[in-house]
Amino acid sequence: MVFWKRLFTPDPVTLPPGLPNNAEEVELPMGRNGNSRLFFSAERDIDLYELEELCDAVGWARRPIRKVKKAIEHSFLVVTLWELRGNRRRLMGFARATSDHAFNATVWDVVIHPSLQNKGLGKALMEYMIRKLRNADISNITLFADPQVVNFYRRLGFVLDPEGIKGMFWYPD
Amino acid sequence: MVFWKRLFTPDPVTLPPGLPNNAEEVELPMGRNGNSRLFFSAERDIDLYELEELCDAVGWARRPIRKVKKAIEHSFLVVTLWELRGNRRRLMGFARATSDHAFNATVWDVVIHPSLQNKGLGKALMEYMIRKLRNADISNITLFADPQVVNFYRRLGFVLDPEGIKGMFWYPD
Repeated sequence: MVFWKRLFTPDPVTLPPGLPNNAEEVELPMGRNGNSRLFFSAERDIDLYELEELCDAVGWARRPIRKVKKAIEHSFLVVTLWELRGNRRRLMGFARATSDHAFNATVWDVVIHPSLQNKGLGKALMEYMIRKLRNADISNITLFADPQVVNFYRRLGFVLDPEGIKGMFWYPD
Repeated sequence: MVFWKRLFTPDPVTLPPGLPNNAEEVELPMGRNGNSRLFFSAERDIDLYELEELCDAVGWARRPIRKVKKAIEHSFLVVTLWELRGNRRRLMGFARATSDHAFNATVWDVVIHPSLQNKGLGKALMEYMIRKLRNADISNITLFADPQVVNFYRRLGFVLDPEGIKGMFWYPD
């Protein structure tokens, strides 16, 4: 019986060492990215200084590491993009979503390293996130888009102000 | 020492029986609501069938109780409005917020029973929620407003599309 079970159970995909569990290799529309390989992951064991370096690279305002740690812990889903060269992995993309685990999710902090932008990876990372949220039975995925990325999200199927619903913000004085 | 401590510690407010802990009596701008008293609470021990009755009263589409329970459990903050007549309390308002516990909160499902609408209670409930979120050091409070309540939220200090940031939605096909 063991023999038959082994025969018909597909081998788990063998990941290169150093990657998070359950990482998925990215199929790039334009093929391999030089001699590196790219992986998505939904594990949240992220070096927060590496994340800060990524956010610095796109010019985001710095945030206290302590609060970033708390935000990641209390996000429903955290997705990451990793570049692997030899045995060295590097964090190249990130996004997270808060959620009530039932109806709604809201996407925050979507970032791709400048050296990998315009290769379809932002789209692929968001599609990976949408797939994970749909698998968790979340049907209403929302976000707040800066003007320059509205068309990016539109191409992913996000709708602007559906039925006149408006995004609103409250900030302290 | 005990004597002095007792002398200078204010008595806790005595709540009528049957109310959630830490409930706060609402000061209505137009005075008492007949012979009933109104209270806000941030406890989440809500009878889900009573909540369904409240949502029915404003004509919302029914949602599975199991999912509502999960959504309440995984909301960061749940605020409620209670009407007390004699010893009987009744759920008359509700709102909840998801959050990463650090930077952002998003408000969902704001409802006031029709019999108590247009008395400033929606505004007071939202102010109560904003105060609770600010106390938890959340600085970015967001929501998605239906067209008919955009001005209501504007009067509370919410800003529409600040710097062109747009609310967007993704729904399954």
